[in-house]
Amino acid sequence: MEAEIEFIPEGGVTSPEGFFAGATCAGISKKARDKLDLGILFSEAPCVATGLFTTNRIKAAPLVLCQQRLQQGRALAVVVNSGCANAFTGGKGLTHATEMAKLTAEGIGILPEDVLVASTGVIGLPLPMKRIRSGIEQVILSRNGGHELAKAMMTTDTLAKETAVAVKKDGNKFSIGGVAKGSGMIHPNLATLLCFLTTDAAVEIDFLQSALKKAVDISFNMISIDGDTSPNDMVLIMANGLAESEPVSSGSERADAFQQALEQVCIYLAKCIARDGEGATKLIEVTVVGAPGLAEARLAARTVVTSLLVKAAVHGADPNWGRVMAAVGRSGVEMVESKTDLYIGDIPLVKAGRPLPFSKRSVIQLLKGREVSINLNLNLGSGKATAWGCDLSEEYVTINSRYMT
Amino acid sequence: MEAEIEFIPEGGVTSPEGFFAGATCAGISKKARDKLDLGILFSEAPCVATGLFTTNRIKAAPLVLCQQRLQQGRALAVVVNSGCANAFTGGKGLTHATEMAKLTAEGIGILPEDVLVASTGVIGLPLPMKRIRSGIEQVILSRNGGHELAKAMMTTDTLAKETAVAVKKDGNKFSIGGVAKGSGMIHPNLATLLCFLTTDAAVEIDFLQSALKKAVDISFNMISIDGDTSPNDMVLIMANGLAESEPVSSGSERADAFQQALEQVCIYLAKCIARDGEGATKLIEVTVVGAPGLAEARLAARTVVTSLLVKAAVHGADPNWGRVMAAVGRSGVEMVESKTDLYIGDIPLVKAGRPLPFSKRSVIQLLKGREVSINLNLNLGSGKATAWGCDLSEEYVTINSRYMT
Repeated sequence: MEAEIEFIPEGGVTSPEGFFAGATCAGISKKARDKLDLGILFSEAPCVATGLFTTNRIKAAPLVLCQQRLQQGRALAVVVNSGCANAFTGGKGLTHATEMAKLTAEGIGILPEDVLVASTGVIGLPLPMKRIRSGIEQVILSRNGGHELAKAMMTTDTLAKETAVAVKKDGNKFSIGGVAKGSGMIHPNLATLLCFLTTDAAVEIDFLQSALKKAVDISFNMISIDGDTSPNDMVLIMANGLAESEPVSSGSERADAFQQALEQVCIYLAKCIARDGEGATKLIEVTVVGAPGLAEARLAARTVVTSLLVKAAVHGADPNWGRVMAAVGRSGVEMVESKTDLYIGDIPLVKAGRPLPFSKRSVIQLLKGREVSINLNLNLGSGKATAWGCDLSEEYVTINSRYMT
Repeated sequence: MEAEIEFIPEGGVTSPEGFFAGATCAGISKKARDKLDLGILFSEAPCVATGLFTTNRIKAAPLVLCQQRLQQGRALAVVVNSGCANAFTGGKGLTHATEMAKLTAEGIGILPEDVLVASTGVIGLPLPMKRIRSGIEQVILSRNGGHELAKAMMTTDTLAKETAVAVKKDGNKFSIGGVAKGSGMIHPNLATLLCFLTTDAAVEIDFLQSALKKAVDISFNMISIDGDTSPNDMVLIMANGLAESEPVSSGSERADAFQQALEQVCIYLAKCIARDGEGATKLIEVTVVGAPGLAEARLAARTVVTSLLVKAAVHGADPNWGRVMAAVGRSGVEMVESKTDLYIGDIPLVKAGRPLPFSKRSVIQLLKGREVSINLNLNLGSGKATAWGCDLSEEYVTINSRYMT
């Protein structure tokens, strides 16, 4: 029987059984004193846990701590702050991250080793530990605290990013929830900024790792806002088994359902991040088919969605399709001009390399929408991939020329 | 004896002996009817000639024609238009480019095979051949026509880009001139947009090719405006030997002087392009020393100068140095946080990975200048390189969201 997968209305990271969260306004950033900026996620039952981390050579202190602690393959809580990345902060950074975990553990009454830490915000500044300490004391955990946590993780995000799905498969039920934050320094390179995933399914650690990698590859690794990857990027997943379904392991009947549901959550959150890119006014979806292979399809789709000129043209609803072709052309992917087809939405602009006459008005109308889809067929093979990004607006520049000052 | 190399005041592509140029307003772009948009460069004496071309898989028709014709290693003229790139125009594109060369040859009274063709502008539209034909007839060539040619090549450039140097070495005299255009779709990848170089030195073809490659590698290949490479990028060089100095060949005494002078011209023009990037208000110079090797130094410098977040921070004079570190960190180049030094201008911000206290006011003052220099020492080896770029302004987005419409 096919698995039934349904999005849970108002779902989030605490939708799965046994997960609690909460947040507070610790006053970490001077810019937004009344913003939620410190949160905690906690599972009342022990979790199998794993994560994926930035490929940036500079690794933020909390990330280093998480990588160490996840070697044990389990965790009970995550503490997260926005407003300061605790990256490029030397040995002090690791001391601070370790203290954040310890204080969180003491507050809940668990071992410090079972607490993971994440930070996001300005690079190179030390954490204001006095504020962090009193902040951690103030957090109250609740079963629907996921929404507060989502808000506490936001920096330049304009919308909280959270979702959950309920899965039914052969009489087994479980759910998967997730929360993420963008919205600058976003570029596909293993993991992308902060995302915490939770599930009440029981999952074997090896399968959890491979399922996460697969889901991240087609979601967070396929979005780009600005081509910059952050030293703080991480995707964490915690599975507490409280749904009392049979354990999900590789090759088991539930494995496909779990994988599919996890991918839906990740793609949903990845699209939320792309759509809410700094200064963005619309989501761009680029699908490449007919590439020589999967890797080529991925690279071509990502290159188009990353091109500043494509992004700016979409922003201005300018049907300058030559920029899409130029981006594929420089991507390094094999392409043959006389074989390439290009569509904006479902309107064909180029067929077998020949520019077609098209209604400029109709194309501009499509480009003016909140979601713009660009579809390419290289007609060379069976490689297929989709990437997501956003338009480039004047507002992006304004945000990023005044981030620190 | 050391070579004397001096910039020629008001120098340009027709400064070397025997070169003529001219331009006209052919009305190619509907947007700028009164703009010079078609030009011709001509040498009265036969030239040894070579070029470097885009690595984009999409190659504009004029570029394909140039690559074919330069196999003979000689040329007498170049015809160039702005307003239409004649790229992604199918078989018709090559017919049009060939006709441009033929008409130019007939006008001057030379063989069509000795004429090179270059185009720049919107991709995917056919050349308006009627206007091109009457335009070519109108061009009047003169010894100081280089300035007009420089103007005719401009698209979103705000300034003409031209220079020339006079070289004296052991009683031999010769000169090298150049003209270039930017200012979008600029990213290091072999050659960068249009640049024509001229010299009245006699140069052997093999040496000319290697000298050009070397000079382009440290100039045009080290600038980035927006990470996009164009299907039309080309750098051409023509040497007519009229200075009557002895031929320059590899290993000859004049080889070093020629190389050095050529590099000065290329770096000057490359910096002009970077400074005049679309919407740019300042030039950014990034120097990386202490990299494990040359390739790593080049990659690190180019990644920093390409980072949107660095570019936007410089635009807003925001001393957010963590973005520089994050960019190096994601570049793929080996770096060790605890060894890295960072300077803005001559102000140290990070020493051996430790953030230093610094006068924010002084750094902001430097960032507000027309030229901003960012200097990194990775302290890992002897690799050293400099890259140039520009800040990212709201104006860049405005220009590129309305390019075609």
